[in-house]
Amino acid sequence: MKLTCCWSATLLLTLVPSCCQSGNILVIPTEGSHWLNNEILLKALHSRGHNITIARSSKSWYVKDSSPYYSTFTVPVERSFDKKYTRRLVTEYIKFQRGASPLASFLHVTMGMIDKNVEVHRAVSEFLPAMLDDTELMRRLNQSKFDLVLTDPWWGNGAIVAKYLNLPLVYNVRWLNPEEAHFAVAPSPISYIPVTLSGYTDKMNFFQRTKNMITYLITQIQTTSVSKLVYQPLCSKYLGPDADFDQIKSGADIWLIRTDFVFDYPRPTMPNVVYMGGFHCTPAKPLPKDLEEFVQSSGEHGVIIMSLGTFVPSLPDDMANKIAASFAELPQKVIWSYSGSKPSTLGNNTLLVDWMPQKDLLGHPKVKLFVAHGGTNGVQEAIYHGVPVVGLSLFFDQYDNLLRLQDRGGAKVLTLTTVDKDDNFLKAVKEVLNEPSYRANMQRLSRLHRDQPIEPIDNALFWIEFVMRNKGAAHLKAQSHGMPWYIYHSVDVALFLTGAVLLMLLTAVMFIRCLCKSACRGKLKRD
Amino acid sequence: MKLTCCWSATLLLTLVPSCCQSGNILVIPTEGSHWLNNEILLKALHSRGHNITIARSSKSWYVKDSSPYYSTFTVPVERSFDKKYTRRLVTEYIKFQRGASPLASFLHVTMGMIDKNVEVHRAVSEFLPAMLDDTELMRRLNQSKFDLVLTDPWWGNGAIVAKYLNLPLVYNVRWLNPEEAHFAVAPSPISYIPVTLSGYTDKMNFFQRTKNMITYLITQIQTTSVSKLVYQPLCSKYLGPDADFDQIKSGADIWLIRTDFVFDYPRPTMPNVVYMGGFHCTPAKPLPKDLEEFVQSSGEHGVIIMSLGTFVPSLPDDMANKIAASFAELPQKVIWSYSGSKPSTLGNNTLLVDWMPQKDLLGHPKVKLFVAHGGTNGVQEAIYHGVPVVGLSLFFDQYDNLLRLQDRGGAKVLTLTTVDKDDNFLKAVKEVLNEPSYRANMQRLSRLHRDQPIEPIDNALFWIEFVMRNKGAAHLKAQSHGMPWYIYHSVDVALFLTGAVLLMLLTAVMFIRCLCKSACRGKLKRD
Repeated sequence: MKLTCCWSATLLLTLVPSCCQSGNILVIPTEGSHWLNNEILLKALHSRGHNITIARSSKSWYVKDSSPYYSTFTVPVERSFDKKYTRRLVTEYIKFQRGASPLASFLHVTMGMIDKNVEVHRAVSEFLPAMLDDTELMRRLNQSKFDLVLTDPWWGNGAIVAKYLNLPLVYNVRWLNPEEAHFAVAPSPISYIPVTLSGYTDKMNFFQRTKNMITYLITQIQTTSVSKLVYQPLCSKYLGPDADFDQIKSGADIWLIRTDFVFDYPRPTMPNVVYMGGFHCTPAKPLPKDLEEFVQSSGEHGVIIMSLGTFVPSLPDDMANKIAASFAELPQKVIWSYSGSKPSTLGNNTLLVDWMPQKDLLGHPKVKLFVAHGGTNGVQEAIYHGVPVVGLSLFFDQYDNLLRLQDRGGAKVLTLTTVDKDDNFLKAVKEVLNEPSYRANMQRLSRLHRDQPIEPIDNALFWIEFVMRNKGAAHLKAQSHGMPWYIYHSVDVALFLTGAVLLMLLTAVMFIRCLCKSACRGKLKRD
Repeated sequence: MKLTCCWSATLLLTLVPSCCQSGNILVIPTEGSHWLNNEILLKALHSRGHNITIARSSKSWYVKDSSPYYSTFTVPVERSFDKKYTRRLVTEYIKFQRGASPLASFLHVTMGMIDKNVEVHRAVSEFLPAMLDDTELMRRLNQSKFDLVLTDPWWGNGAIVAKYLNLPLVYNVRWLNPEEAHFAVAPSPISYIPVTLSGYTDKMNFFQRTKNMITYLITQIQTTSVSKLVYQPLCSKYLGPDADFDQIKSGADIWLIRTDFVFDYPRPTMPNVVYMGGFHCTPAKPLPKDLEEFVQSSGEHGVIIMSLGTFVPSLPDDMANKIAASFAELPQKVIWSYSGSKPSTLGNNTLLVDWMPQKDLLGHPKVKLFVAHGGTNGVQEAIYHGVPVVGLSLFFDQYDNLLRLQDRGGAKVLTLTTVDKDDNFLKAVKEVLNEPSYRANMQRLSRLHRDQPIEPIDNALFWIEFVMRNKGAAHLKAQSHGMPWYIYHSVDVALFLTGAVLLMLLTAVMFIRCLCKSACRGKLKRD
């Protein structure tokens, strides 16, 4: 593997802040929708005068090598999280899930993710030796005087680079390979916090809590296997034998978590966790002329929009046909973001597009319904604009995301196994369109989401700049970080105190027995 | 006891909001420094156009029956938290503590507080029957359409009144009889969260964690005894047999906690907890002319100010003489808020005053040192203005508050047993005045405290108004509220899963034994 790096021309010249207010940020990116939202944060940072440098992989799918908002340098790798591999994984997954029973589906998802996760992380972590072994690159990075590393810890690379360069670390985060971010930083009672993939809300009966616990234990196996098999050897090699990846990973200064408690269930949190759910949402901009004309042609019935996200450009043909046929029966107009072959049952009311301005459409008053796969970005946009949802969850957290909307009365959720049975899809669409409570509930969530003392994006920017100003946020990191579990849970103290009490009781009993015995002996002597 | 109430003249006429933006707030107050800071919040609410009504006790020490900021009605009681009783308790306490060994002092404080607490809460809770039995008053309160109840849950009255009137509840809080507020709402690992009265920081060795656990258990006895002996019978009487005081108490919509993580140690928190530490702090206003002249007369040496808070107007004579003699040796000028008899050793450089504009003095550039008792309000003011502290802790949380400053290098703490031994007081004052790190550390804390995305008072006002707009904050309350401990900690699930695994193992062992036996039998038959 070639270990040299190709810096974009004038990168290192621009790294020093141009004024005391502007900062110098090194970004270790991830891919897909994770990159899409991160780029919005980077643009906002750029607009505030900060210099941004991105260490992109040569196999990067989303991160382009030039942009007006940031400089880049490219780290040459042989494998990464590439488009072809990911789409093959997703297609195989959808194929299996369609025919699976609930138990088979659960086992396939949870157990299958252990080796799949290790495989993905092995590929993406090839970035690390390629970057850290390049001594000239590292020398220049050290000279560049970055203020912090900003990363999405879905992959572990960013945290290790920050530790190597001894820089403060800020996360733009929802997952850490693959547990939900809170589990790595805050107390997480399994009794009312539904684990991702459990498919539950925060109100669980005994059976559900048991399945939630089992899912939690499997997630821990996944997390531990990725940590120990992939990142720990790299930590030991580059940061020394005492470096512990789990501690490095959970030691970020600020966690900008992409949820809030309108979308997610209330749960314990920590002082260095900042909620920026929906930070990427903005008021709708006007639509392109042709799209606006199409939308207006829907008249009083309005428009349905449908998208299945970054990783799923198309569906199996029979499923796409069923969905297209259902749309054809409706009086609404439909805009469907779809890159597969044109469904044979497509109605005249349905416009297939390669890409659509989803956020602007969701903010358009004519849009009545969003058929969504349940990715975090899309669900937050639906909340922001108060548009009810028919959910077709495909994989990972999508069912759980949609469930949160359904639980609040704003969505109806279908799965790969139910979507094309009977008229499920058509029924769901009609129910959400015709029952006013769905819209009312989404509008209520929208009002709650917007009712915050500070905009999520401004809050995120504040805390990134706080870390720059204060060289980290040490005073917000709890002493629990890195504490062994038996100390954290006071197991040693509890055992000691229990032992001490038992010893005192035993001594008291023996003392009383001795007293009784000597009293008896005295009585016998007197008798 | 007379159960009628004397409403101030035009109260009920002013209760309806004058416009859709203004709210209608019922306040159930407490006394002393708790009232002083609450009044600041009420003035801010008043300035935003909200109508405030205070249910004051006829024995109220601090809450006056008329004010331009709020209306009041007086509930006639025979006993409450009165000045005479409180000052007697504090004087007795100081007398005992001066000569006590550390163990005797610890036992006196922790165990003594069990019966003292019940006694105080029995007195203050006489307010409840006096208010709730007055049917005419309650009818009028019900008609007044309050938006919420605002209370300090140091006493349990406010939570019970809110439940009785079925109103949303907002806390301005640091303590709930007497545990620190977080313990009633958020996970609180004893391994790194020092319990009040433990006298520890968040970094504890095994012995300290053990004493912290013992202190925690004693605090739980105190909390439970107050709940079960004082408030639960009142809940059962007025809210029905199923009403549980502990659930009502921990069910507030928003907890405005009077700390932040510059003052206190980082620890788990919850979505409905809002930090407003130092909300009462404001930039210094000019001093009265005579005080300004006295301050300016200090020249380059500057000024020391000293106050021991709301409950302690004076000290034992010999202690006051020792402190006055120490001050007399210094080149600084001293302003001492003191209501006792004039110490015989008082120097010419020391000005005794009944009251001083503490916040304005702390913000004066000539003030070099604050000799403080460690009440939360004063400590927050010292942080806000970045003034180093010599602490003389008297009772309850004061040592722990001062310890937080000492741990960050901004204070030196003395206690009742050490203050007048040798030259401890003079040495401490000289050390903090002459060692620049104390001031530098307090200035650093001040910068961190002021580096927030929103002013603490504005944050508090936002969330009070949020509760008005949204009729509570149900979406921020976790499902853990009211959950039995064995469910919360998944004890039932853990037992079930352990049982299931053991049963499976046992079945497997028995199956293998059967197989072995039949194999042996087959072999014997064949032989």
